[in-house]
Amino acid sequence: MIEESIRIIPGFSWFGKNIGIKDGTLDFGGILADKPCQAAGVFTKSTMPGAPILVGREHLRNGELQAVIVNSKNANVATGPQGAEDSRRICRLVAQACGIEVGLVLPSSTGVIGRRLPIETIARGCATVGTDFGKTEHHIDSFARSIMTTDTRRKLVSARVGGATVLGIAKGAGMIEPNMATMLCYFMTDAEITPGSLQPMLTRVVNKSFNRISVDTDTSTSDTVVLLANGLAGHVDTDTFEEVLLEMAIYLAKEIARDGEGATKLIELVVSGAKTKEQALLTAKSIINSPLVKTAIYGADPNWGRFVMAVGKVFDYPVEIAELRIFFGQGDHRFRIDAEILDRDEVPLAEISDILKGNEIHIEVVLGDGPFSEKVWGCDLTEGYIDINARYST
Amino acid sequence: MIEESIRIIPGFSWFGKNIGIKDGTLDFGGILADKPCQAAGVFTKSTMPGAPILVGREHLRNGELQAVIVNSKNANVATGPQGAEDSRRICRLVAQACGIEVGLVLPSSTGVIGRRLPIETIARGCATVGTDFGKTEHHIDSFARSIMTTDTRRKLVSARVGGATVLGIAKGAGMIEPNMATMLCYFMTDAEITPGSLQPMLTRVVNKSFNRISVDTDTSTSDTVVLLANGLAGHVDTDTFEEVLLEMAIYLAKEIARDGEGATKLIELVVSGAKTKEQALLTAKSIINSPLVKTAIYGADPNWGRFVMAVGKVFDYPVEIAELRIFFGQGDHRFRIDAEILDRDEVPLAEISDILKGNEIHIEVVLGDGPFSEKVWGCDLTEGYIDINARYST
Repeated sequence: MIEESIRIIPGFSWFGKNIGIKDGTLDFGGILADKPCQAAGVFTKSTMPGAPILVGREHLRNGELQAVIVNSKNANVATGPQGAEDSRRICRLVAQACGIEVGLVLPSSTGVIGRRLPIETIARGCATVGTDFGKTEHHIDSFARSIMTTDTRRKLVSARVGGATVLGIAKGAGMIEPNMATMLCYFMTDAEITPGSLQPMLTRVVNKSFNRISVDTDTSTSDTVVLLANGLAGHVDTDTFEEVLLEMAIYLAKEIARDGEGATKLIELVVSGAKTKEQALLTAKSIINSPLVKTAIYGADPNWGRFVMAVGKVFDYPVEIAELRIFFGQGDHRFRIDAEILDRDEVPLAEISDILKGNEIHIEVVLGDGPFSEKVWGCDLTEGYIDINARYST
Repeated sequence: MIEESIRIIPGFSWFGKNIGIKDGTLDFGGILADKPCQAAGVFTKSTMPGAPILVGREHLRNGELQAVIVNSKNANVATGPQGAEDSRRICRLVAQACGIEVGLVLPSSTGVIGRRLPIETIARGCATVGTDFGKTEHHIDSFARSIMTTDTRRKLVSARVGGATVLGIAKGAGMIEPNMATMLCYFMTDAEITPGSLQPMLTRVVNKSFNRISVDTDTSTSDTVVLLANGLAGHVDTDTFEEVLLEMAIYLAKEIARDGEGATKLIELVVSGAKTKEQALLTAKSIINSPLVKTAIYGADPNWGRFVMAVGKVFDYPVEIAELRIFFGQGDHRFRIDAEILDRDEVPLAEISDILKGNEIHIEVVLGDGPFSEKVWGCDLTEGYIDINARYST
């Protein structure tokens, strides 16, 4: 149903360009709709959100947006009232250049924390955006690349719903922890959605997708997911639209986990047999975030004892070890381990090690016979993560 | 007051030897008192504790112990009723060999999870322990080395309190997370402590020392801290004894953090100005456990924005960013950063980078003007951690 290819959405334009914020790579991009769109957004739960988050929340208050403007290389976080004023000025300049209302522009910034934006550089970049925007696949591709930081590839997905088209573009590789919107992601569609249903729909979708991924337990100060619907294609079935949107969001969430800083493997983990929804999620997060589980998977080491450890540190939900089962792999290549084991010869260590050598690892942990389950995504922990993050700001 | 040198405690014997559990290194050790001791213990909060923890809790129930027997290379965890029976058998064999009651023997095992102990090998090792025990410094040193796993050095501290002597021996380098006793640690003394005060004293001490360290957020299934007091030196002042015990416990806790798997630096972090004790501790843990903070410190990258991020993800305790201050270094070499900064030129980045190049890093984060503070210890995150843990069990 969803596709990795670019689809142009009628009524939208895009651009991505270099304005020299840090180096010669694409660092400034935008989305522009021909007319104001219904819009919904989900932002970071960080208590120290970036300046663009504060301005974005304000501009989204009435549920309408017409443009999104994004810079990478600098997050505009911990920059005080001046940072908020910088974000507002960018919105004003873009609104002037495009002939739209300033309150319909959503600003985003992503990159290093604690440095003032090079605001004059950005102001010069804003002056010409009116002619930068265009409606081709190339413009979409440039936008998708302009928002990348430590990402190794652009993250994009598209789909058709009835007569409408949906496009999703995301970035994210580090400072990623499930439990809130965690990264930048923009959805655009020409579908017309029943008024009032867009925001609750987006919240539900984010909760089942981006809120279920983890790279490193660290929560960004800049996370934003926004959906813009211009209505040009008329009404579509809301349930179908939400299904497709969820499928797209899960695709992009997995792309972010797969592209985790230094990661070599995507991990899809299901925790089932839980007594409560909370037990399933807490346990899933305990496992997917465990550095010892992540390094074992990196090394294709069938060290399932670390799963026992990670289940055991969810102190509020004791599990009977005699009931704990771990399944590695899927389909015909799925191997079961009973956690309480006496004969090491019974454990299919070689088969599990083979599974862990893949680049997409499926694991299910069954806690007991309870009815609740949760699915989360993460990645392995490698020397690459250390290498990227030990000297990031210098 | 405390010393890194070995002190012999009257009335105690030790041994450490190789019995071939995995390779040719020391892997089996013990502590024996001439007569039953007052004893107190603190164990892991894991809901999946190892078999020795279950047996140890039982044997410690009446507050008396006479011997401790430890094997490394295998944790005897997730081994079911057979694992508990193996631990009991080891206690029986040691009791027989030493002519003491089986209920006075505390067993410990540390190493890989999910493999049955090589019980016949260990039984052969137990048969001769009666003659292995001895009262020299060499015997203490062998014991301290026999309990090591990925530790790069033995961890030992001693002190005098009044006419009595105290000795503490610990191990621990990975699967270390503050919030419970996290590792193996044995304290021995010839002091006589008021009955009933030993256990609450040990609990208080552990809470301020071992419960304040973190290597990797992962909680071991085998953690044990035990204190044995044989009373030979007569009464000592209880308050003084507790002070010294705390100083010793903090020394050993720091030794464990300093020797964290792959670590190159010890980090001492104070979070102050908090509104509640909980806010101080949650924030301290959020910072000391952040992979992005840990990698930045490894790279001596003065990326203080990551401290803002880590404070911001303590969702229950919003902090005014205008009040947030971060101090790097100590004494004359202490540099202040106000988190909400406008002029990057004001930040002493070179000075902070120099401080981060040391092997013991002191940092204070001031959240506001609240009266509560907490001190925790951790270490940096390096390629060495990945290297050690990616292929541990194979």
